[in-house]
Amino acid sequence: MLVTALDIVGTFAFALSGGLRAVENRMDVFGVVFLSFVAAVTGGILRDVLIGAVPPAALQSWLYVTIAIVAGLLCFFSYRRILRLARPVAFFDAIGLGLFCVVGTRKALDAGLSPLMAALLGMLTAIGGGLAADVLSARSPMVFRREIYALAALTGALLFALGDSVGVPDLVVAPLGALLATSFRLIALSHDWHLPASNPDR
Amino acid sequence: MLVTALDIVGTFAFALSGGLRAVENRMDVFGVVFLSFVAAVTGGILRDVLIGAVPPAALQSWLYVTIAIVAGLLCFFSYRRILRLARPVAFFDAIGLGLFCVVGTRKALDAGLSPLMAALLGMLTAIGGGLAADVLSARSPMVFRREIYALAALTGALLFALGDSVGVPDLVVAPLGALLATSFRLIALSHDWHLPASNPDR
Amino acid sequence: MLVTALDIVGTFAFALSGGLRAVENRMDVFGVVFLSFVAAVTGGILRDVLIGAVPPAALQSWLYVTIAIVAGLLCFFSYRRILRLARPVAFFDAIGLGLFCVVGTRKALDAGLSPLMAALLGMLTAIGGGLAADVLSARSPMVFRREIYALAALTGALLFALGDSVGVPDLVVAPLGALLATSFRLIALSHDWHLPASNPDR
Repeated sequence: MLVTALDIVGTFAFALSGGLRAVENRMDVFGVVFLSFVAAVTGGILRDVLIGAVPPAALQSWLYVTIAIVAGLLCFFSYRRILRLARPVAFFDAIGLGLFCVVGTRKALDAGLSPLMAALLGMLTAIGGGLAADVLSARSPMVFRREIYALAALTGALLFALGDSVGVPDLVVAPLGALLATSFRLIALSHDWHLPASNPDR
Repeated sequence: MLVTALDIVGTFAFALSGGLRAVENRMDVFGVVFLSFVAAVTGGILRDVLIGAVPPAALQSWLYVTIAIVAGLLCFFSYRRILRLARPVAFFDAIGLGLFCVVGTRKALDAGLSPLMAALLGMLTAIGGGLAADVLSARSPMVFRREIYALAALTGALLFALGDSVGVPDLVVAPLGALLATSFRLIALSHDWHLPASNPDR
Repeated sequence: MLVTALDIVGTFAFALSGGLRAVENRMDVFGVVFLSFVAAVTGGILRDVLIGAVPPAALQSWLYVTIAIVAGLLCFFSYRRILRLARPVAFFDAIGLGLFCVVGTRKALDAGLSPLMAALLGMLTAIGGGLAADVLSARSPMVFRREIYALAALTGALLFALGDSVGVPDLVVAPLGALLATSFRLIALSHDWHLPASNPDR
């Protein structure tokens, strides 16, 4: 129940971020809904394709399409109002980040990957949708732009994968991993932490 | 026979659109042929990967490579002449759109997807090649730019998927779905219909 | 033993080229390592996904992640020094090109593809990483920009696929194919050979 609720709010926040990007690019209403869907589900789809779990889970339920349509239309018709909600959206986005990196790692472990590679796939689950939405907007992905986002997902995924590999039960280490990713992301946001940028003159 | 003929002219039109894009980007001759191939086959390849039908059908026949090479070289050596044929090319492109959205939906239904999700995959079959060619040209995809293109494919795919789900035989509803997509696209072109663009100031 | 050594130096050169691209785009340290990984493994991952060999080989070993992290950090901290090594890097990159196009063709043949399509997948194995790194940098891929790179890979892959299809043993035709691709690339570099660019005014 709780996981389903977190899944819905997290997916909704991801879909909003995709829709906002599309509006910034002045896409048409179809493009806005499409990018909401892409941002919401592509991470999970990439993971499922890479572990051979096809058709991907995201294509077997009406839920994510419905969430994407609602989020996309909200962005299309009320862009400025959604923008003003940036703080709660970032909060729910961080919750999605935590949940999806742990769920993705779990599925990758079940597919037989080693803990390290499973954590990488868990991170990809969490960041893949944003990556794809950025690529479809023909802009360099946000996650490479000094945000502590992918790193937060990777940290949570690694904690979960390593805990699992030494026998800690999921019921303990899954919430811990998700909580670590979510809170790392939120603390970085509130303290304005950034990763160092590269410098071609060095 | 008819389906094979439509498949060839549709694929050829798709390949031409990819090649034209590559020439506009002043790519080299390899890039032009490559983008013709990408525009011609990526939609079907995405669909096949997502439903687990690998290796994808497009990689199991010489036909599509041959079509792409011919189309690409035409674009490379006779760009302005092909441009002047924009109207017949758009006509055959619309035929490809109709055919591919229905064929894609059929394959997705056979893979066990629900009618709604199968229609989405059918649409992706029809628009995926253009999407990929745009991404490889580092520009924001045409289908998000107020064109009634993806929407036409989705409408035809939905008609086919819903007709199939209530038991209408393929022989009836497949041509109807393809015809709906193709004529919707052509009417939108000739009447200059567009989707509303989003507006970040709203 | 030799193949493993070539695999490591080739992967390392590919990873360096991804990392350099990321630094030019002023990505953060995470983005630089990520693009090194993408450039190193995406070609093989695309091939494995297309032939249904999932999870892809590149996700089943620590080796490639480790290579990508080392290469990425080198690019991040010592960009100018790596740039000054452009010639040896291009040399090892060409070795990777030769090796990966032959290995990719072999795997595609084993998956039942025809020699021509297997050679295409072999080429994709060799160029896919660079393509993906370019797309994630939101720039038009280098391989379409008059470089004799993909063409060299395709030539080597075709030699190997055709030799194999007429019964020449791998031990003979695999090194020949790799050598052809590598030396074609190196000769084109040293003689400044380029493919003709397209011209939208023609």
